[in-house]
Amino acid sequence: MIDVCLLGAGGVMPLPNRALTSLFLRYSGSAMLLDCGEGTQTALRREKVKYSSIDVILITHLHGDHICGLTGLLLTFGLEGRVRPLKIYGPAGLRKAVDAARVIAPELPFEIILTEIKEDSLTFNEIGLTVSAFRLKHSIDCYGYRIDLKRPPKFNPQRASELGIPKRLWGTLQRGEDVEGFHASDLGGEQRRGLSILYATDTRPVDNIYTFGKDLDLMILEGMYDDDGYLEKAETVCHLTMGEAVGIARALQPKELWLTHLSPVVTDPEACEPRLKERFSGTVIGYDGLHKTLFFDE
Amino acid sequence: MIDVCLLGAGGVMPLPNRALTSLFLRYSGSAMLLDCGEGTQTALRREKVKYSSIDVILITHLHGDHICGLTGLLLTFGLEGRVRPLKIYGPAGLRKAVDAARVIAPELPFEIILTEIKEDSLTFNEIGLTVSAFRLKHSIDCYGYRIDLKRPPKFNPQRASELGIPKRLWGTLQRGEDVEGFHASDLGGEQRRGLSILYATDTRPVDNIYTFGKDLDLMILEGMYDDDGYLEKAETVCHLTMGEAVGIARALQPKELWLTHLSPVVTDPEACEPRLKERFSGTVIGYDGLHKTLFFDE
Repeated sequence: MIDVCLLGAGGVMPLPNRALTSLFLRYSGSAMLLDCGEGTQTALRREKVKYSSIDVILITHLHGDHICGLTGLLLTFGLEGRVRPLKIYGPAGLRKAVDAARVIAPELPFEIILTEIKEDSLTFNEIGLTVSAFRLKHSIDCYGYRIDLKRPPKFNPQRASELGIPKRLWGTLQRGEDVEGFHASDLGGEQRRGLSILYATDTRPVDNIYTFGKDLDLMILEGMYDDDGYLEKAETVCHLTMGEAVGIARALQPKELWLTHLSPVVTDPEACEPRLKERFSGTVIGYDGLHKTLFFDE
Repeated sequence: MIDVCLLGAGGVMPLPNRALTSLFLRYSGSAMLLDCGEGTQTALRREKVKYSSIDVILITHLHGDHICGLTGLLLTFGLEGRVRPLKIYGPAGLRKAVDAARVIAPELPFEIILTEIKEDSLTFNEIGLTVSAFRLKHSIDCYGYRIDLKRPPKFNPQRASELGIPKRLWGTLQRGEDVEGFHASDLGGEQRRGLSILYATDTRPVDNIYTFGKDLDLMILEGMYDDDGYLEKAETVCHLTMGEAVGIARALQPKELWLTHLSPVVTDPEACEPRLKERFSGTVIGYDGLHKTLFFDE
């Protein structure tokens, strides 16, 4: 299972009850953050997250509302005695931004391993999950992230017996891992869906969202503006309206859609929900602390 | 009159209900901030402060809990269309820290005028107030600030008539300003107390606090630790315990003492108040949103 929590649902500027953009994702005792706006460390504390569980931070882009919380978070990691390395992924320029953040955090007791993504898309593994970064269309270089937890095929004990595999190895093969010359794939068990999450903000609608947005348990898109009169503005400043985000969800049919990165001009986001649910029933307007645990099917 | 509001009463790390260190001070439509920890811009919004009223930021020192909110605040100033210059004062290294903050805020529509304080003390005028920076004793270069609103002598209409000053100039002279060759000081009115505030965190007790801490309406000191068992720790990391801060107030007799920069280990600060009030009755344990309006005597 994967725990997901929207730490901050706000874009542009923080409001007293809406911190800037950040998503927390935990799997099997490790965790990652997606974006780190101002207020992220406070939200983590509110949600009683153990700071040391966070091994990876994925940054979408280098606008302040997505990264201003990083300096404080690094300092707090240091004050709490962290020694585990921290990996940070983000677009080109990430190293310069992290170096700048460290001007007032020059001495940290842990290593920071940076990866600047320059490809149109890049897939890598972290904390047992497969992460695919894909380029979005914003006013600066920006990436969305798809996170997949792959599920091994259903274990087939009859076939394992036929192949003469000792029972002590079954557990390993059941997890989809090869062991002592036996291959999990040889067991020919029934293929099963894993869990998949997509997080994309800030952007205009782009092909990559459709390419990477198939068969999702949870799709998290920005809903920067309510529709009324803001479409032209959204086009100009390279953001999505809530209506556009719901349109994407209608096309891709995730199990659920969360809208985040709400502009401060959206003063009553809940009021939009009924209208949006009419178009895509799985729509949820994000708020600080919105959380969900995703389980495998069955 | 001067409005004072403690935006954040926390030190080291922010807590959900205790933002990092910042003090807001408003006089005659303009305002200044003292320190700018993470969460400052959110607290300003909570207090319904008009961002554009802030003309000056005084930074005590370059530790993250006093300056991490600056990048986000500068960005928000810019997004709100600020064109008025912003003055920032702080210790040596301020320019480097602000340059670093601006790596993710490269384009701002207003000028930032920086002053690095290098003297043991430095007095200057801002927003109609006299500001005296004075060196503290912390693990890095650190300044406290005394803010004075001077009050002109009581206006003496009889003397003004004797000197043949036209009545249309009386208002200007009454404000203590010279006009058309007439000098406010020639009116010989009764001298009157102004208003005085001192803000000093993070520090050990030093002579400068006593030098600059006389005749205060409001003394704001850090109360990093409750006394029980933390004195040695406070000495090592160059902070004040609440007991030490109250001891300073006993000696200097301000009208009121606020304790701020509370460590996250101080989980129930209000519980300390009765004990501290026994030693200095004007003690108030700070909290986010604590505010007071200071008026002239009479």
